[in-house]
Amino acid sequence: MRGFLVIGNEAVTEPFNLNDLPGAGRIDILCRCVSQALFLSHSIRRDVEVYLLLLGKPDPPKAIKIVSNELKRMSPDERNIAGHLRKAVSFKISKDWTETNSGIFVSRRNIREILEELSKKYKIYYLREDGKDLKEEITFIENPLFVVGDHLGVRKTEEDVILEFAEKIISVSKLSLMAEQCITIAHYELDRFDK
Amino acid sequence: MRGFLVIGNEAVTEPFNLNDLPGAGRIDILCRCVSQALFLSHSIRRDVEVYLLLLGKPDPPKAIKIVSNELKRMSPDERNIAGHLRKAVSFKISKDWTETNSGIFVSRRNIREILEELSKKYKIYYLREDGKDLKEEITFIENPLFVVGDHLGVRKTEEDVILEFAEKIISVSKLSLMAEQCITIAHYELDRFDK
Repeated sequence: MRGFLVIGNEAVTEPFNLNDLPGAGRIDILCRCVSQALFLSHSIRRDVEVYLLLLGKPDPPKAIKIVSNELKRMSPDERNIAGHLRKAVSFKISKDWTETNSGIFVSRRNIREILEELSKKYKIYYLREDGKDLKEEITFIENPLFVVGDHLGVRKTEEDVILEFAEKIISVSKLSLMAEQCITIAHYELDRFDK
Repeated sequence: MRGFLVIGNEAVTEPFNLNDLPGAGRIDILCRCVSQALFLSHSIRRDVEVYLLLLGKPDPPKAIKIVSNELKRMSPDERNIAGHLRKAVSFKISKDWTETNSGIFVSRRNIREILEELSKKYKIYYLREDGKDLKEEITFIENPLFVVGDHLGVRKTEEDVILEFAEKIISVSKLSLMAEQCITIAHYELDRFDK
């Protein structure tokens, strides 16, 4: 299994306008992360989970889980993925995962609750520019879930919790990349090592 | 300089509906390629050019050139980029490059005409799954322009011409990746080697 958790610092937690994803707290970034994490050319990767933590107004926190093996009717363009996210945030939610579409679930979880769950099935790696080079660490990485921030990075409140759970801080580039680029590169290096 | 040429086999050559980019001959793929080629987190890469060859109805071929150093008012979301492309295909065009926005140009060129121009300033590398491993070749790559197909790959008509101009056929993964993922990985490997 491979997992990704993307922190949407201002991602709105109510249905939003599909014609203005950046204006919805940069939902566009989350959509690109989902796309790059799940899709290959003409197919969906097996055994990948994407978690999105939406921390924007008016009803945070909301967590969305997308399970590649169960996913149906998603395509890699931002608007299609945004439609699925929009539906997910429109559901009445609880602490349990509610399925909003095949392979897509929503629940009320904060960063600690989500990492408590994820650390039972994954080793947690925090992607940050000053971390250790992914390529150097790749042989040691097993069953990873990578935590990555959006355009605002990760705020101290969430980062303190992530660091409690993280095995290591990992960097994929000396450049400051977009979140979805970090995901593509993580896949690429793991693919090379058949991880 | 780094360049990318993306072949949009069915990308429409007239103004299209921004609410249905996949339906416009998969303009969504071209948008993601532009986004991944040009953008870093909060900035635009220097010295990158992206060329798009639109071969769809009703008025092919049209070529679009995007020059990172001159680019203004573009953001990395698909819809924003699509708005720029939509404007470009709405212009009356000639064999010369017509600027449709700061850093964005359109012209009437077919694959041979575009590669004749590009081969004067770049070495041409054709990205195909059965090519030589990018990582093995990276130290030999200088001043590259990578040619990549969309979801339909590259048709024989265009491929025959590309092979005339290509220094090498290069592969970035054993998996069949989406075009924009190939671009992200090409940047990643070049960045590592400060190319």
